[in-house]
Amino acid sequence: MRLRNVKNKEEIMNNSSYLVRDNYKGHWNDYFKNNNPIYIEIGMGKGKFIIGNAIKNPDINYIGIEKYDSVIANGLLKVPEGLNNLCMLRADALNIDDLFDHEIDTIYLNFSDPWPKKRHHLRRLSSEVFLKKYDFIFKGKKHIFMRTDNKDLFTYSLVSFSTNGYKLVDISLDLHSDNMPDITTEYEDRFSSKDMPIYYVECIKE
Amino acid sequence: MRLRNVKNKEEIMNNSSYLVRDNYKGHWNDYFKNNNPIYIEIGMGKGKFIIGNAIKNPDINYIGIEKYDSVIANGLLKVPEGLNNLCMLRADALNIDDLFDHEIDTIYLNFSDPWPKKRHHLRRLSSEVFLKKYDFIFKGKKHIFMRTDNKDLFTYSLVSFSTNGYKLVDISLDLHSDNMPDITTEYEDRFSSKDMPIYYVECIKE
Repeated sequence: MRLRNVKNKEEIMNNSSYLVRDNYKGHWNDYFKNNNPIYIEIGMGKGKFIIGNAIKNPDINYIGIEKYDSVIANGLLKVPEGLNNLCMLRADALNIDDLFDHEIDTIYLNFSDPWPKKRHHLRRLSSEVFLKKYDFIFKGKKHIFMRTDNKDLFTYSLVSFSTNGYKLVDISLDLHSDNMPDITTEYEDRFSSKDMPIYYVECIKE
Repeated sequence: MRLRNVKNKEEIMNNSSYLVRDNYKGHWNDYFKNNNPIYIEIGMGKGKFIIGNAIKNPDINYIGIEKYDSVIANGLLKVPEGLNNLCMLRADALNIDDLFDHEIDTIYLNFSDPWPKKRHHLRRLSSEVFLKKYDFIFKGKKHIFMRTDNKDLFTYSLVSFSTNGYKLVDISLDLHSDNMPDITTEYEDRFSSKDMPIYYVECIKE
């Protein structure tokens, strides 16, 4: 994602009730005041996908995670008032196991940084390094959905999921032709309008 | 594959020492007179791939399986004299467990019939029906290599392998760009020359 500096990002972040600054590790159900399942998006960008999901599914709690202030400020501006099943965290995915303790039901990885150089492969959000961290934050059955426009990240991820114990239960090499999703990301809209394929996988580890 | 009738196919089949008509189930090492690993190609077509492999790897035994007389006759004609590590079987893959008993090391599935209709999916050579049969013919670690030009067969197969206990250890969505194989099939050559991508997966079940 190209970063545009948001001038008043500090002010936006300070004034939004959707940005969580306290650490609720192990107590997220207290934060949401219910026991509904918690779905997170790691690298939520400007939040279109997770906000759309939160509006559509009021019985699921959503947490969007994003590491850049400018990006999360954009997301915070977009959240409609009164959405009680959504919040956002400014954090680096590397510290994800400091944020949650066996309380996540589903992880979305949408258009993650592909880190194209081989020597950087462990920085990819689907690498073994991160899958081990996810093991710590998942509550029971592990469930990951990934979308990307990057072919090499996709094949890398399929192999990484599979060799780390995940079963690949649904795959598309052209998601928008096979089964157009009703909620998309900003990035996806841009790619899809150029007729570039979106790769998709859903995987589960018991 | 388009079938062209080979007029003297009976004569070719009767005269070739590479066509095995006896049942060596459980005794294939007696047939080859050694204990080398046995690799099979199910649906070998005209045999370019398996003959090329047999020439290249004299310490591996190869068995090409093909159900159509006209096709196997074409393959038999192409085998060079004195190739002791290759034979061919005219058989339907549905009966594969009548041909082998825990003695196969590797299976190749190259450009298998995609059976595009959903209701026919169990006829695909990567369906659960066949994977269960393969469990019976594999000796120890199960090792399958698949190539196809058919996107839907490919994604179906990835999911089928994965949900039936295979780990996907190598995947390409464009094999000839990523890592051009030195031995190809006739069918592959035709597709590749049209710049259509060849999909590839290697998978293993312990």
